[in-house]
Amino acid sequence: MSDTMNSAANPAVRNGVDTATLFATLDAVKGNPEIAKFQFRATNTWISGTHNRSTIHGFYGAMQEMEHREARSFDADHPAVLVGSDNGPTPVEFLLHALAACLTAGIANIAAARGVNLTSVSSTVEGDIDLMGILGLDRTGTVRNGFQEIRATFTLAGDDDGQLEQVVRQSMARSAVFDVLTNGVPVSIDVATAAA
Amino acid sequence: MSDTMNSAANPAVRNGVDTATLFATLDAVKGNPEIAKFQFRATNTWISGTHNRSTIHGFYGAMQEMEHREARSFDADHPAVLVGSDNGPTPVEFLLHALAACLTAGIANIAAARGVNLTSVSSTVEGDIDLMGILGLDRTGTVRNGFQEIRATFTLAGDDDGQLEQVVRQSMARSAVFDVLTNGVPVSIDVATAAA
Repeated sequence: MSDTMNSAANPAVRNGVDTATLFATLDAVKGNPEIAKFQFRATNTWISGTHNRSTIHGFYGAMQEMEHREARSFDADHPAVLVGSDNGPTPVEFLLHALAACLTAGIANIAAARGVNLTSVSSTVEGDIDLMGILGLDRTGTVRNGFQEIRATFTLAGDDDGQLEQVVRQSMARSAVFDVLTNGVPVSIDVATAAA
Repeated sequence: MSDTMNSAANPAVRNGVDTATLFATLDAVKGNPEIAKFQFRATNTWISGTHNRSTIHGFYGAMQEMEHREARSFDADHPAVLVGSDNGPTPVEFLLHALAACLTAGIANIAAARGVNLTSVSSTVEGDIDLMGILGLDRTGTVRNGFQEIRATFTLAGDDDGQLEQVVRQSMARSAVFDVLTNGVPVSIDVATAAA
């Protein structure tokens, strides 16, 4: 998204991306890096068994408290085969959604910044997991709790076929979720308890 | 979930967890580790700009192709301040949801296995991100693309206050999402392109 552009090559909106506002935003951040400091949040409430629900609404950014247009809630659960009630996807499936969504958003932005018109972007993401890990049944010490590997396949069509793969590679190089999933992130957890 | 239990201490259902089925599942997996090999999937389609949608339905597990009770779709987008149309949470917010959901599901299962009755579990998860990274504006080489840190706070109430914190710690120790986020996972991406 930092590519140098000229207005002749860039209409105001390309791929549904408001490139004029995008470049104005980049200029604003260059002028005041405090604008770029964001904090995102989710709150979760247990419902029953492995079924629980997160709500996503407020966040901090551009030096102020902000809110999404509406509060949105997402259920998660385990399927019956994993002794849940299947009231939502499993938590790990949301990681796959997050990866696909982040790379796709980046593809649209980067293609727009580079003057490439996209006609379609689709992807499938799959992750392998051996539940011997989370079930505490691995006696070999070799089975991790999480995904062993994630694989994604992207299919793109656009008016500059020769640039499309590079757009995906640049999206990977600038994706927040790809970074977190491949490199990990420090996670700290506090616990407050009370007798019922 | 590998705690040794006896049936007297465990009613069939505790915390909404079918403990009898849970222990039977553990026994089945012990008898045939192939049952534990799962693959989860998401498919994503670009809509416009940073707006895209994932669908989660089929998965592989217990040595067969399976499906969730229904196909479920989730939109992701960037908010207006990040030059999107705010048709859904940002991709990184789904990572926070996944973490809260995975730890909460584990808390319910582990508490049930240990004979602890829960009355409430809630959590807030927040992640700090400096967008100088993904915007390609960091010239110091020190700003990553993803979250710099994730912090969660869990609040639990139950009938055995003294055990609740240990239940959370055990959930962290056996959480698929906590493992992926803290340790990272190999991600490979294939790209197929076509002229429009």
